[in-house]
Amino acid sequence: MSHWPATKSESTDPEAFRAFGHQAVDWMADYMRDVRGLRVVPDVKPGAIRSRLPVSAPEQGEPFEAMFRDFREIIVPGMTHWNHPGWFAYFPANNSPPSMLAEMLTAAIGAQCMSWQTSPAATELEQVVMEWLRKMTGLPDGFTGVIQDTASSSTLVALLTARERAAKWGIVRDGAAAPDASKLAVYASTEAHSSVDKGVKIAGIGLSRLRKIPADDAFAMIPGALEEAIRKDESAGLIPCCVVGTVGTTSSSGIDPLRAIGEICRKHQAWFHVDGAMAGTAAVLPEMRRIFDGIELADSYVFNPHKWMFTNFDCSAFYVKDVEALLRTLSMSPEYLKTLYDPQVANLRDWGIPLGRRFRALKLWFVIRSFGVEGIREKVREHLALAQEFKSWVEGNPDFELLAPVPLSLVCFRCRPRGRDPKDPSLDALNEKLLAAVNATGRVHLTHTKLKGRFAIRMSIGQLQTERADVETAWNLFVEKADTM
Amino acid sequence: MSHWPATKSESTDPEAFRAFGHQAVDWMADYMRDVRGLRVVPDVKPGAIRSRLPVSAPEQGEPFEAMFRDFREIIVPGMTHWNHPGWFAYFPANNSPPSMLAEMLTAAIGAQCMSWQTSPAATELEQVVMEWLRKMTGLPDGFTGVIQDTASSSTLVALLTARERAAKWGIVRDGAAAPDASKLAVYASTEAHSSVDKGVKIAGIGLSRLRKIPADDAFAMIPGALEEAIRKDESAGLIPCCVVGTVGTTSSSGIDPLRAIGEICRKHQAWFHVDGAMAGTAAVLPEMRRIFDGIELADSYVFNPHKWMFTNFDCSAFYVKDVEALLRTLSMSPEYLKTLYDPQVANLRDWGIPLGRRFRALKLWFVIRSFGVEGIREKVREHLALAQEFKSWVEGNPDFELLAPVPLSLVCFRCRPRGRDPKDPSLDALNEKLLAAVNATGRVHLTHTKLKGRFAIRMSIGQLQTERADVETAWNLFVEKADTM
Repeated sequence: MSHWPATKSESTDPEAFRAFGHQAVDWMADYMRDVRGLRVVPDVKPGAIRSRLPVSAPEQGEPFEAMFRDFREIIVPGMTHWNHPGWFAYFPANNSPPSMLAEMLTAAIGAQCMSWQTSPAATELEQVVMEWLRKMTGLPDGFTGVIQDTASSSTLVALLTARERAAKWGIVRDGAAAPDASKLAVYASTEAHSSVDKGVKIAGIGLSRLRKIPADDAFAMIPGALEEAIRKDESAGLIPCCVVGTVGTTSSSGIDPLRAIGEICRKHQAWFHVDGAMAGTAAVLPEMRRIFDGIELADSYVFNPHKWMFTNFDCSAFYVKDVEALLRTLSMSPEYLKTLYDPQVANLRDWGIPLGRRFRALKLWFVIRSFGVEGIREKVREHLALAQEFKSWVEGNPDFELLAPVPLSLVCFRCRPRGRDPKDPSLDALNEKLLAAVNATGRVHLTHTKLKGRFAIRMSIGQLQTERADVETAWNLFVEKADTM
Repeated sequence: MSHWPATKSESTDPEAFRAFGHQAVDWMADYMRDVRGLRVVPDVKPGAIRSRLPVSAPEQGEPFEAMFRDFREIIVPGMTHWNHPGWFAYFPANNSPPSMLAEMLTAAIGAQCMSWQTSPAATELEQVVMEWLRKMTGLPDGFTGVIQDTASSSTLVALLTARERAAKWGIVRDGAAAPDASKLAVYASTEAHSSVDKGVKIAGIGLSRLRKIPADDAFAMIPGALEEAIRKDESAGLIPCCVVGTVGTTSSSGIDPLRAIGEICRKHQAWFHVDGAMAGTAAVLPEMRRIFDGIELADSYVFNPHKWMFTNFDCSAFYVKDVEALLRTLSMSPEYLKTLYDPQVANLRDWGIPLGRRFRALKLWFVIRSFGVEGIREKVREHLALAQEFKSWVEGNPDFELLAPVPLSLVCFRCRPRGRDPKDPSLDALNEKLLAAVNATGRVHLTHTKLKGRFAIRMSIGQLQTERADVETAWNLFVEKADTM
């Protein structure tokens, strides 16, 4: 590694950037190549990193060399490595070489993509790539796409638009004093993501008006229970404003029956939002389209290319049918943002919560072109097959059991030593201990949930670099550690 | 430029990334060096970029070479260059070499910073850097910082917390049916940013409950008018829930008197949120702290390092005093997000709207260390001095006039040919034409606003690369073009 003196101009000098940028690229490539050798989750206690950093900013500039050294020596050893091949926790937040390259170029241009005028190519590329993605995933005509930061924000935008459509745009105008404001109700299954709860809080609809509809044994919403809840609310004078269906719930990959739910929404004039945050990518496979059957009945739909499509966080694809309803809910046009072309163009700031927007379309464009649709299909098929294989190992071991079906790439399981009653409450503590022991090795990382009141270990397979051997390592660790307990 | 064959593995191969990453770094350094030679705003019509892109995604992967070529030949020529030294539009969205380096490393790690456990070093670095920034800008003890994407989101978080504090956390529970839900009112000056309006819509408070308080001749909120509006609402049984003060309004750098407003807020128990999105950076200068006098009375405060502190968008610094009130409003803790350390750590997902969070602290850390506080002060002083110089040119020319005071780096002016009545309505069309003519040169870019009903040209000076000669170029273009009209 070369050294050069700290000069004031290093912070503004393109040539200093060039020299150090090359070092950064080498570090990035090495990291990608070598991440397998790191602990997935660092062995640090709260406050450990903080205690190694100065409490005040330096008065005088420091050389890049110093920051890069501290980055490698203090920061990286304190990071959780989401791109480790042993990453089986939560859902993945993937990146990939083409995505990283695009993030580099995006950082250099540093454009603000709030309006067409403020970055014409960014707005138009976003429209084009959202169309590519719509077709790749078999989403019918009539949906228009926009990139949001996260599924939480996408779902919030859907809830807000649903709120206003139900209240005839009275709440944006008069708030809680609008005639129908206190009559709204929202529906989602007991298995829906917490972003629905959070959205309902933010939108001022209120958690007590969020009906958690029971799920069946496969963790899918029961349509009859939904309809019953809606009817009950309607006869109490309430307005069913929005139903959120999920394809691939976070806890267990539950798949709500979209067609049945969509038909109920039509009948009761409720907005139908579909959350396919993780599962959405699976729709690139024709053989997986069946789990999205009925998606054409949705009013809005979100899935995250930053989860399972090898695109850097943040990149959430939000699709909506009634664009006018959305714009009527969110658009603002103060004088200082008006441009000549406003009547002819999409100003994407009006499609989401924040005014400022990064140029996120570039990375998705690079990823789709670099892999090709067929390349993405291959990876997704590989992950689905690995999940089935892991599932077969669980089923084949008399000391373990599955706790949910495996329609996608998530396997929920636990250790239940042979002969132990499935209702034995001490199994929760046993599995919590087992999971901690496996994670403590630093070789893999998994997280947990509760399914039907039971502690369940979640094995989520979706990392770009994960191979069969990594999945096997995880399984062997569980078997080994269980043996010693 | 080297060429290599397209292989399926290019999309996953660290070595392909390395080779192409070096090319990308060279492009980035060249871009930074040569951006001055590009048109600031491209000469493209709506649809021009779109028409050059295929309507469907490729089935088979393409080589990096192809994407990079299209990036250079189709995308870059269609971009507005926010980092051009002739960028005087809106407010800047800056980057800098240290910020770009950090964005590269961030993209490689690809961490998801929603919880301490999911990236310990990222959470702790964010806490440390927010403390650095608090001290650098003279913000008193008692404020705790967190990075949000934009000032829009920060202001929304403030409004939501204010809403809940006023309604005793009844709205997150019962929505519009909560006892005080329909009684809330929000206050901001006529000059406040549109994000306040948007936040009031999203939070379900309603635009008709947003009181636009008159501003004085310097575009600062009139405290007496605020107090009058609050009293009027109180006697009508309403609850003053939040007052938003602005330091450095978007249109004209109006500076609300924080101390007077803060005292009114205390008296009436309203949440006091301060929006210093652009101006906040000026607080690194001791001599500029006077415009923040009274900031210690605020309950929350936002400013954007991505505007004037040479840090890539997105990076908005949000400070709040009553963290508990914020968490009680926004936090969600489903089983699948629970971690062992939750009682001891900050899980920053609960401090904002989205669940997922990028690792944004790294770039701010790199920027502050690379420039040093003194280096940032120097740049800001330079911009402030350039604005004063531009102002003196306007004042010295009998065919131009200032339309607002210049307390910061924004100069609002117009052409008024000598002898023309200031009330002449045709001056609006004249200045609109003049601005269009100057922007059409592609050498500089400025935007407009309306001040006291008059079309005003905004000259906002805050770009990292802007030098005195660039400011002079802008002024000369205005004088020249005005002469020909």
